[in-house]
Amino acid sequence: MELQRTGISLIYRLELTNQGTTFAKVASLVGDAGGDIAAVDVIRVTPDMVVRDITINVSSREHGRQIADILDREPGIHVVAVSDRTFLVHLGGKLEVAPKLQVKNREDLSRVYTPHVARVCEAIHEDPSKAFQLTIKRNTVAVVSDGTAVLGLGDIGPYAAMPVMEGKAMLFKQFAGVDAFPICLDTKDPDQIVETVKQIAPAFGGINLEDISSPRCFYIEERLREELDIPVFHDDQHGTAVVMLAGLLNAAKLVGKPLPSLKVVVVGIGAAGVACTKMLLKAGVTNILGVTLEGIIHRGATYENEMWNWYKEHTNPDNVTGTLDDAIVGADVFIGVSGPGVLTVDHIRKMAPDPIVFAMANPNPEIEPELAAPHVRVLATGRSDYPNQINNVLCFPGIFKGALAARAYTINEDMKLAAAEAIASSIRDHELREDYIIPSVFNQSVVQRVADAVAEAARKSGVARREVPPTNNF
Amino acid sequence: MELQRTGISLIYRLELTNQGTTFAKVASLVGDAGGDIAAVDVIRVTPDMVVRDITINVSSREHGRQIADILDREPGIHVVAVSDRTFLVHLGGKLEVAPKLQVKNREDLSRVYTPHVARVCEAIHEDPSKAFQLTIKRNTVAVVSDGTAVLGLGDIGPYAAMPVMEGKAMLFKQFAGVDAFPICLDTKDPDQIVETVKQIAPAFGGINLEDISSPRCFYIEERLREELDIPVFHDDQHGTAVVMLAGLLNAAKLVGKPLPSLKVVVVGIGAAGVACTKMLLKAGVTNILGVTLEGIIHRGATYENEMWNWYKEHTNPDNVTGTLDDAIVGADVFIGVSGPGVLTVDHIRKMAPDPIVFAMANPNPEIEPELAAPHVRVLATGRSDYPNQINNVLCFPGIFKGALAARAYTINEDMKLAAAEAIASSIRDHELREDYIIPSVFNQSVVQRVADAVAEAARKSGVARREVPPTNNF
Repeated sequence: MELQRTGISLIYRLELTNQGTTFAKVASLVGDAGGDIAAVDVIRVTPDMVVRDITINVSSREHGRQIADILDREPGIHVVAVSDRTFLVHLGGKLEVAPKLQVKNREDLSRVYTPHVARVCEAIHEDPSKAFQLTIKRNTVAVVSDGTAVLGLGDIGPYAAMPVMEGKAMLFKQFAGVDAFPICLDTKDPDQIVETVKQIAPAFGGINLEDISSPRCFYIEERLREELDIPVFHDDQHGTAVVMLAGLLNAAKLVGKPLPSLKVVVVGIGAAGVACTKMLLKAGVTNILGVTLEGIIHRGATYENEMWNWYKEHTNPDNVTGTLDDAIVGADVFIGVSGPGVLTVDHIRKMAPDPIVFAMANPNPEIEPELAAPHVRVLATGRSDYPNQINNVLCFPGIFKGALAARAYTINEDMKLAAAEAIASSIRDHELREDYIIPSVFNQSVVQRVADAVAEAARKSGVARREVPPTNNF
Repeated sequence: MELQRTGISLIYRLELTNQGTTFAKVASLVGDAGGDIAAVDVIRVTPDMVVRDITINVSSREHGRQIADILDREPGIHVVAVSDRTFLVHLGGKLEVAPKLQVKNREDLSRVYTPHVARVCEAIHEDPSKAFQLTIKRNTVAVVSDGTAVLGLGDIGPYAAMPVMEGKAMLFKQFAGVDAFPICLDTKDPDQIVETVKQIAPAFGGINLEDISSPRCFYIEERLREELDIPVFHDDQHGTAVVMLAGLLNAAKLVGKPLPSLKVVVVGIGAAGVACTKMLLKAGVTNILGVTLEGIIHRGATYENEMWNWYKEHTNPDNVTGTLDDAIVGADVFIGVSGPGVLTVDHIRKMAPDPIVFAMANPNPEIEPELAAPHVRVLATGRSDYPNQINNVLCFPGIFKGALAARAYTINEDMKLAAAEAIASSIRDHELREDYIIPSVFNQSVVQRVADAVAEAARKSGVARREVPPTNNF
């Protein structure tokens, strides 16, 4: 199990001489060395030799090197090359920018470029809102990061952040038909980031902020939301919150508890924790306790972190103090966006009947799923190798698709709530189970359901610039 | 002739009732109204009615409206809709951002996105130069404009500039396989433009500056060239200069005059005029006179425009003074990057035998081609409706393709000269004619020829980061 989770899959190109060197020998050596053969291809056969590509799952790059050495030492086997499948798919990047139509002749050229493009330019110059009809602004999102909080890797900078942003742009296109382009910024100054994003905004219909460290992300998002007239959405905050709420809506339905009745403990009051809390408040939950390393956030304290001062005014109605040990007593729901080991079985035992635990820390949840499972009614994590994965991929493609369809000025709380309800409703009541409260990211109906609900919510809440939904034209 | 040049082609959807309304009637009405029918399609036939789409070239939008009125007044004809082909091809923009590979299952997802993408991020974090292998930086160019000097339209702003930049990006991809993305900046401050471009640079392997007004373009390009480690190329300057030189190399060959022997008069000493002059100097031309509205640039004067002070030190070896009337006497070559009407037949009559005239002002050349033709040996313009079009499309796709292949730090004079020679050499000696000194933009061999020459020049001049040319992988 642990082996597969590393995801390191190497392709060994081997020359096997035909003097009795069989594939069985290779398989035996690889197996003895702890490698797991995933695929075998024959590349070339000559009278003297067979060239084979053997795909092997290994536990580390060092492990991969050891296997190469073992094979190469064996008479009759020569290791020609070792390549890494994950790196292979990244060669040259994962995106291309393609013309929607081909320029076949001089007439085509004169329409899409000089001289006749000038008439289109003039039309936009007279009425800038036509940029939404006549340029890629209609359907294009910038995926913007400064590389300061990338995955679990931290501040690795804009160059190293690119593969994540490219991956995100792929998912935008594949899942929602939304064109997205990665913009990785070579600055960490929040004001410079704001200015730069404002300056590049004309090409884009929306801005997806990504992997920007807290608390800088709050300031950057807030200013951009105020100063731009297109949606600005920090996915690490709001995407997580939307999908969490989607799961909670179904979990609460399953255990038969209405949302306003729930006592919810949120652990980890950073960017995602605050966003989850706001989403819960919007959905009607009132009894929320936020827990940090300093304990339960309460009105008796004054915090350096401005967000926590906001937090104490909007949560903890009974002004409880103490630690997680105190907060968890009688709680219906645990929401973890912190780190591994925060939650224990003893904690869960103190919760109300039918405990709901969302242990979303990545890559290692607040409690090992195997430990928690016997004691909870519903368990969700951020991981793909357990049921109920809280995965942003369920949210961002559809929410932007809907916002773009409505030409929304912004993505507001109504639209996020609509997205959560749409994701939740992708599972019908009779399908709901403890291990199926959230649809798969490969469930193809989710995106359009989310997009339609979000566009409708944009219209109802008065932030749409377009009344009629566009036909599906990607 | 003038009619076609407007390029306004409208599609009229007509309902023709079947009581004797024939297409001949429509054709006659359109013809009488001065319209030119380019295409006819039948859309639907019912017992009562035929629906047809008639494509008509018109001389103006008002002319198009008149034709619609005339048709609609005719009994038996109903104009259902009128649409403009140029606008139709722009609906929703002209580009899409597409994944290079599809995410089919959870394993694919884990490779291109979390969690396994993290290993690729780490590899780049350890060695940032790997961004050229593992991200779109390898093959992606930003097409950057602030919209201050778009085509002949002037300062129309970043929104209205987008269709041109999208068109340029299309041509990058279609002609050279280079991915290009349009970045239109919502600022006119040169320092802000420099900072913004520097900040977004991590995703890109090159920067194509476009349609930025002079003299701001000099400062912006110079600073970016100094402060970035990827090629920065202001196409309006250097693209024009490269293609001009390509044409001149062939024209000089045709008239049998070596370049160092030429007397060249350049009229219009703005961004393009300066770039053309530098290119001529690089190619070995020494006797160059620059002419502005103030006369011939000479060392007796001090100019407000700093570029002209540079110019006087590097041209005009005999320190000639006066106007174009003086400069043109005995000149072998006229290079115009100014405006219509600057050059007269009398001027041409004063030139040396076998006059070469490049009248490149757009859309109206320095002299009407019909006027000039009887008096010159070789005539080139910027227009597609005359022979010998000096068109940047011959340069920018190939020059960036070559620079990216070599992972060049910059595009230097050697590389531009190599590009000009490669374009010129696309026409073999026995093919050279007065009306064929420059290849067609649809000549598919030009781009690879330019790219190879540019990559080689990058290596020879020591600005390449990659020795081996990559295989053609787009």
